[in-house]
Amino acid sequence: MIRIGVDAMGGDYAPKEQVEGAMLAIQKIDDIEITLYGDVEQIKALLKNDERIKIVPSHYVIPMGEKDPIRAIKEHPDASMSMALASLRKDENDAVVSSGATQALIAGAHILVRRMQGFKRTAIAPLIPSVSGRPTILLDSGANLEIRPEHMLQQAYFAAVYSKEVLGVENPKVGLINIGTEDGKGRDLDKEAFHLFTETDLFDFYGNVEPKQVLDPPCDILISDGFTANIVMKTIEGTAKGMGVILKKELSSSLLSKIGALFAMKSLKHFKKAISAEEIGGALIYGLYRPVIKAQGASKAYGFYNGIRQAATIVRSGVFEKVEARLKEVKANESESE
Amino acid sequence: MIRIGVDAMGGDYAPKEQVEGAMLAIQKIDDIEITLYGDVEQIKALLKNDERIKIVPSHYVIPMGEKDPIRAIKEHPDASMSMALASLRKDENDAVVSSGATQALIAGAHILVRRMQGFKRTAIAPLIPSVSGRPTILLDSGANLEIRPEHMLQQAYFAAVYSKEVLGVENPKVGLINIGTEDGKGRDLDKEAFHLFTETDLFDFYGNVEPKQVLDPPCDILISDGFTANIVMKTIEGTAKGMGVILKKELSSSLLSKIGALFAMKSLKHFKKAISAEEIGGALIYGLYRPVIKAQGASKAYGFYNGIRQAATIVRSGVFEKVEARLKEVKANESESE
Repeated sequence: MIRIGVDAMGGDYAPKEQVEGAMLAIQKIDDIEITLYGDVEQIKALLKNDERIKIVPSHYVIPMGEKDPIRAIKEHPDASMSMALASLRKDENDAVVSSGATQALIAGAHILVRRMQGFKRTAIAPLIPSVSGRPTILLDSGANLEIRPEHMLQQAYFAAVYSKEVLGVENPKVGLINIGTEDGKGRDLDKEAFHLFTETDLFDFYGNVEPKQVLDPPCDILISDGFTANIVMKTIEGTAKGMGVILKKELSSSLLSKIGALFAMKSLKHFKKAISAEEIGGALIYGLYRPVIKAQGASKAYGFYNGIRQAATIVRSGVFEKVEARLKEVKANESESE
Repeated sequence: MIRIGVDAMGGDYAPKEQVEGAMLAIQKIDDIEITLYGDVEQIKALLKNDERIKIVPSHYVIPMGEKDPIRAIKEHPDASMSMALASLRKDENDAVVSSGATQALIAGAHILVRRMQGFKRTAIAPLIPSVSGRPTILLDSGANLEIRPEHMLQQAYFAAVYSKEVLGVENPKVGLINIGTEDGKGRDLDKEAFHLFTETDLFDFYGNVEPKQVLDPPCDILISDGFTANIVMKTIEGTAKGMGVILKKELSSSLLSKIGALFAMKSLKHFKKAISAEEIGGALIYGLYRPVIKAQGASKAYGFYNGIRQAATIVRSGVFEKVEARLKEVKANESESE
């Protein structure tokens, strides 16, 4: 049995959607068991079936807009998020899923979860939609604003293994987010990363990719520092939202187009779904000993279920063990050649 | 008469769309005269009316994908772009419009056009669409990848004057592109710029703006360094393009939605137009003595005409003179207080 710890209280619609998502996961996935961390009364009122689900009481909820996440985590070991994270260290779970505040989850993972041996910097890596239907891994979406090319190399390697083992991509390619496609473009960080990625045999490097291609990239992984990739992610979100509003306005501007919109409604709903993070799961935090998945704050039951499914797939795939073993190997070779 | 120099040979569809755009501008705007720099034979074949239009022959065209723009400009003073730019220094024109290669135009402006006194770093500032219909100024979209907060302050000030005098915004507000809205977010550059912008009385500072709001911002100007803002611009483009493809796929997925799409076609066309740069003109290069407008490389006649219209509006507004005078004043005050 794969043991998934769930922060039942984190998220815009917690605990309702989290508990329902957990029930859906139990129903659809045979080899998991779930521990819900949260308010026992509230959870019990929502839980219609407790097969393979248990509840561990928590007594605090870290708010979604928490301004000082590090302090919040340190001061509240009894928070649902803190307890779920701490369960990994105690070997009570194999993975944790939360849709609580992103920065608190990153801080909590730092403080409460053991790091993967040899992995130098954490990163957070959401899956973003693409025209092809195959999601792209975007990282680092905000764990480390300033970073060195060597850290990016490790993160890209992790993403490549993840892409292959969890997403089933045969020969995953890594692309470096940049303002131009030619070699020599960008800031010093980008140039150094380009050079390092060209030399490595850890993964297949495609080259520089301009965000003009962000939803139709020639690669499976898009990487930059935690500031840039976060800006990319939020710009995609803002553009999709803004275009939605403009399109809606346009479609209700005349009777003819209103009729058209009615006929096209189902497609427009699909469209919205295709670009929504609900469909493709959550963001994985890289650099930890075990998987911690950040589901969208606004997750509904189905989206949260997808986060749980993703966590189970990761555990099943053994990707963490594979990466850790390889990093040890690389380190051993480095020591030898010194 | 406002004298506009036009690089007739730069752009994906040059010289056809450039010459047609110039004729359209002459027809619609009374107080301008245009000099076309380019191949005389080709231009003459396209020019149906030479009222207030003259041709100056050039003998080279800088290619759209030019890899070494600085060398290209230096080696080809006889290129249409170089000649148009050089005409400013000789006081033969009041403004220049080109849809040639962006980096070549920035390099050419650096080399061939006098700088505005007191302005420390150039920037390039396109207008991007917004949900409200009022365009947002986005800068620096790629002139200087690494920059200091003081340079950003000057650029933001220029943008604020431009927004008021050219775009007619009553009290333009400046927003700092960042990964969070709170004070203290971002890299050192962002924190320092936040501090500087809070203190200044040169313009009205809104605060940090996340790109989640990029098409519906609470401000009129969005500013960051030349790497970040370029990434934002290209991510908007990539998302819009990708969403267009996904939407098209969806709308032809069933007979019902095909019918819907037919009815909604006009709205969808409007939508495409609303998010297109054609409608709202080109990108202005900041920091020069006179306006240089970069129209989109893929400009058609109407888009190019909009670039010319924008150039004429800038000259008429006197915004360059106003900013230069104020910068002198600021500098004089600084010297006094030293």
